[in-house]
Formats: sequence, structure tokens, C-alpha cells
Amino acid sequence: MADKISADQPSPFARRGSTEEVEEGLAFAPKFDADGLVTCVATDARSGDVLMVAHMNAEALQKTIATGEAWYFSRSRRALWKKGETSGHAQRVVEMRIDCDQDAVWIKVEQAGPGACHTGRRSCFYRVVPLGQGGVVTLEFRDGEKTFDPGKVYRK
Amino acid sequence: MADKISADQPSPFARRGSTEEVEEGLAFAPKFDADGLVTCVATDARSGDVLMVAHMNAEALQKTIATGEAWYFSRSRRALWKKGETSGHAQRVVEMRIDCDQDAVWIKVEQAGPGACHTGRRSCFYRVVPLGQGGVVTLEFRDGEKTFDPGKVYRK
Repeated sequence: MADKISADQPSPFARRGSTEEVEEGLAFAPKFDADGLVTCVATDARSGDVLMVAHMNAEALQKTIATGEAWYFSRSRRALWKKGETSGHAQRVVEMRIDCDQDAVWIKVEQAGPGACHTGRRSCFYRVVPLGQGGVVTLEFRDGEKTFDPGKVYRK
Repeated sequence: MADKISADQPSPFARRGSTEEVEEGLAFAPKFDADGLVTCVATDARSGDVLMVAHMNAEALQKTIATGEAWYFSRSRRALWKKGETSGHAQRVVEMRIDCDQDAVWIKVEQAGPGACHTGRRSCFYRVVPLGQGGVVTLEFRDGEKTFDPGKVYRK
């Protein structure tokens, strides 16, 4: 991979300190889980809508910071991927934030192309879970119209 | 607990079907991870800002749906908790959405009180990770002013 980070590149991450340091400090010490991942929420920088929730390993996080484009780690494929590498629907990161205990990342992105979701929609969150109901829950589509044909966009 | 869901209450969840059914269907079949959790993103219904990222187990999800108020599961305390049960800073859920593969929930909430974060801030995401830098990353505070004193709010 042309833009692979070389092994001798220094880590951008600090060691985890005390709770006070993690929450109130300026050291970037992400808390990767047992699988080496942090959760990442990507929102549309214009509308504020949540586009997707995905995961980043250390390399994905490092590449996102270095390049300003979103990289993720696929848990199902066990692989690093650049958002848009197949579809062209890349995400330019306008701002990245980290949460209090540094185990979740929020990126505000400019989404290239007609959508972020592999199902062919603008956002992955195209169904509502109705509230206040007992018994079995039935979803309702909201903003569920397809903005592109995933069969065309993702074919190799 | 007064509002504990009784064991004989039927599950609101469907069994996981095919990928097509999970992504394009109306059956609510959340994919709980190995720890029995789904990720939940809470955004402010007015500003659209991400307030927090947390987790829900089946019971937290069920109670949130039934009551319209946010319940979570604490991984560190291994315990169900109702947002605001100590602080009074409850979250009324305006809308709940589920993502394509049904392993992440997005709730738009009306946040009661001055903030969602246990550190005393409106949102947990009060620090920016600067982009385009090599080497060690230094965080920058943004919207980092404290809106309440957590020592007062969380003391028992």
C-alpha cells in the first residue's frame, strides 16, 4: 500500500495516565479495547446527522489524523480500509474530537458522493425504532430512500 | 428496582435473519456483541452535537424504548444505569434510530440540566484532535468550559 505508515514512524499517542490526566489533560492517550479498537462516530459536518458508527485501530486513527481523510478498521474483514477506496465516497475530516475517557472519537466529515452507507443511502441510520411500545418492535423507514445503487458502486 | 422489567415480559427483539432482512427489513434484530452490548450515540436534539457515546445491553435498550428515557449499561461497573439517576441530568429520547447492520443505536435527546458529561461539561467531546500533524498529538480544548460542578452533582 503506497501510503502505509512505516513501522519506524513514532506513535502519536501518549501512554494512559491517571483519570485526571486522561480527562483534563492535553495528552492524546486513546483507550483501545481488547481488540485494539476505538469507536468512531462520523457526522455530516453540514447537517449534523450521524452518518455511520465504525471502528478505528491505532493505524486507522493515525492515518486519519495524518491525512485528514477517514480510515477505519473492519471487524468483519479484519482489515484496515480507507472510506471510499472502492466506492469513491471518501470522507474529508473537518474536525476530530475525543471523549472524556478517550475511548470514542467523533469526526465531522464532508461526505463525498451521494452517501456513506453500503446499502446505498446517505446515512446508515435510515430506520426509526418507535418508542413507548410494548411487545415486539417494528422499525419504520425514515430518510430511507436510496441515493445510489450499491450494486454498481461496489462492483469491482 | 421499582421499574425493573419482569422476566416474563416478552422480548421486543426479533431473531437475526439474513443480511437482506437485517438491512432492508422492519424486524428489530439488534446485534449484541460478545459482551451483550450495542453502541449508542446520543446527540443533542437541538444542536445536533454528539453528547456521549455509551453502551446498552438488551435490558437498557428495552427500558429506553419502553420509557422514552435513556438507560445504559456501564462496562466498568457492570451495571445497568438510568442516565441522570444520580445527577438528575436525564435524557428524554426524541427519536431512536438503528443502523444498517443493527449493531449501533442513535438517539436524539433532550438533555436535562446543564450537561451530559460526568466531568461537568455539556458534552463528553470537549477536546479536539488536531489533524495533519506528524509526531505526538496534543489535544486542544473546545467547548471545554464546565457547566456544572461534578463534585456537587455526583456526591451522594
